[in-house]
Amino acid sequence: METSLFVFASRPSGWPSSDNFRIETKILGEIKENEVLLKSWFISVDPYMRGRMNDVKSYAPSWKIGQPIIGSCIARVVESRSKSLHAGDVVVGTLPWATYCIEKADNLRTIDVRNVSPGYYLGILGMPGLTAYFGMMDIINPQKGETVVISGAAGAVGLVAGQIAKIRGSRVIGIAGSDEKCSLIKNNFGFDEAINYKTSKSIRKELEILCPEGVDAYFDNVGGEVTDAVIANLDFHARIALCGQISQYNNTRISVGPSILPMLLTKSVKLQGFIVRNYNDRFEEALSQLTQWVNDGKLKYKETILEGFDKLPEAFLGLFGGKNQGKMLVKTD
Amino acid sequence: METSLFVFASRPSGWPSSDNFRIETKILGEIKENEVLLKSWFISVDPYMRGRMNDVKSYAPSWKIGQPIIGSCIARVVESRSKSLHAGDVVVGTLPWATYCIEKADNLRTIDVRNVSPGYYLGILGMPGLTAYFGMMDIINPQKGETVVISGAAGAVGLVAGQIAKIRGSRVIGIAGSDEKCSLIKNNFGFDEAINYKTSKSIRKELEILCPEGVDAYFDNVGGEVTDAVIANLDFHARIALCGQISQYNNTRISVGPSILPMLLTKSVKLQGFIVRNYNDRFEEALSQLTQWVNDGKLKYKETILEGFDKLPEAFLGLFGGKNQGKMLVKTD
Repeated sequence: METSLFVFASRPSGWPSSDNFRIETKILGEIKENEVLLKSWFISVDPYMRGRMNDVKSYAPSWKIGQPIIGSCIARVVESRSKSLHAGDVVVGTLPWATYCIEKADNLRTIDVRNVSPGYYLGILGMPGLTAYFGMMDIINPQKGETVVISGAAGAVGLVAGQIAKIRGSRVIGIAGSDEKCSLIKNNFGFDEAINYKTSKSIRKELEILCPEGVDAYFDNVGGEVTDAVIANLDFHARIALCGQISQYNNTRISVGPSILPMLLTKSVKLQGFIVRNYNDRFEEALSQLTQWVNDGKLKYKETILEGFDKLPEAFLGLFGGKNQGKMLVKTD
Repeated sequence: METSLFVFASRPSGWPSSDNFRIETKILGEIKENEVLLKSWFISVDPYMRGRMNDVKSYAPSWKIGQPIIGSCIARVVESRSKSLHAGDVVVGTLPWATYCIEKADNLRTIDVRNVSPGYYLGILGMPGLTAYFGMMDIINPQKGETVVISGAAGAVGLVAGQIAKIRGSRVIGIAGSDEKCSLIKNNFGFDEAINYKTSKSIRKELEILCPEGVDAYFDNVGGEVTDAVIANLDFHARIALCGQISQYNNTRISVGPSILPMLLTKSVKLQGFIVRNYNDRFEEALSQLTQWVNDGKLKYKETILEGFDKLPEAFLGLFGGKNQGKMLVKTD
């Protein structure tokens, strides 16, 4: 059986490009006992992967040059030598960016795609949804009547984070990068206010007007100037869930900005950097709650899907240009 | 009865000077029912007071031009019209910087100075000790074998914070501003290591060598470049108790430095800005523990005492030049 797969061709300095990826073909060997042959269906591209392109110590191990790119994927079982999986089953797992692959059944989780789009398991019912859940429920713990600001609000995590804050009764202000995204989060996802950071003359002043009593909590996906503007508007005892810094991921050196610590001190702010893996032992609780909210119609979702296995680099690179609304995915079959 | 008192003469822009203070004399009126006449004994000068000199919204209200400077003081009761206090009693309270004053008995707390220096109630058994206690016990919660770094280590708060981390079994590295202070914290206060930030060629590299496994927790009193160097050395899941930013208090504009959020994110760091007042309802617990540690000889303390009421501005200004070892006080009688 022949498979196409993307390998990591070169490390970017600064902005990544399609040159960092290379398609190779490979002949798959025999399926061993307890293994399955999978055909990929949906493949996830995520901002955190930019960190794996660097050769530095971080929470996610670096990709190695010449090795297959690995990430979250949905696949169909084509052939099985495992008792737990059968041909036709749909599974999610951490798999190579490949059209076909052989994987141990133990590393896969069967998913139910009768009622939800399979891609949901890479988004609202996957890593981004869990990230939004723990950042919002555990770190921010939004209260009724509080004002919660979310950057990257139209992204895979931001959309869920904002809706959770709404479920908890907070007033939610989203910051996003186009008028279309701003309209989306207000009109389709129930955000109370939206700021287009690309056209705003002063995000800081817009927030001052929208939040005369200050910002109670901030879910940060982007960092940089957007975050500086929000921090300048924090109220006493504000909480920051530090989830992403996508505006900084392609910097070649540490960027320079206003010192935020004096402000965080004066306002007794709590800030918590986190990744979803810190909450491994609570995934079940979170997925059960997220699934219920989805089934009850309280949580809605959006996907930007590019079609075709060869679109993977384009989809990934698009994340850093804000090309996605909601979760960016590639449909490979 | 005539009293001398310091009033706030002018707001500094940048570094404060003695011109910001003016001595006035005043005739005190009659002592009313439930009031006492006090003669001041020890007056505290504290870094947080710099914030009160600014006309901006902060946790401590601004001082008003022409009004008496207010702060923590130890005084003796000279005359009493209160049933709870008697001439000769020693009290602590928030009082004007004055040689004599009249105050309601309800606003004063009697202290026992038979076994400890009265100044202790302005330091290790007062606001700085409580600050160190809550920052260390509540936010950092140091564990046996962890590496804890403390900036402003030879100051009123830093000395106590470091010793608490030692009591909890951590390895403690202090950062201070002279060889004398470094020797003091290592030889007299049990710190494991000390870095003189003024003579260090690279605080960051010194820390890298002293903490090859990274810094587990950081108690920050100073901010600025010292803090940037510590943050660059944090380990995963590090905690930062953000207590003071004395290096920044005299800035006329927000200073600029490396963006710390990407580092705090990658390492899943928790940071909590705090002031002691956030823990009002737990002062009793903390004072009881601190007193016990002092009585057991587990917590030692140091004071830098200037003699003479007129030394108050000099003592206050000295804080920003690092003139103090331990708590800076003025003995007024």
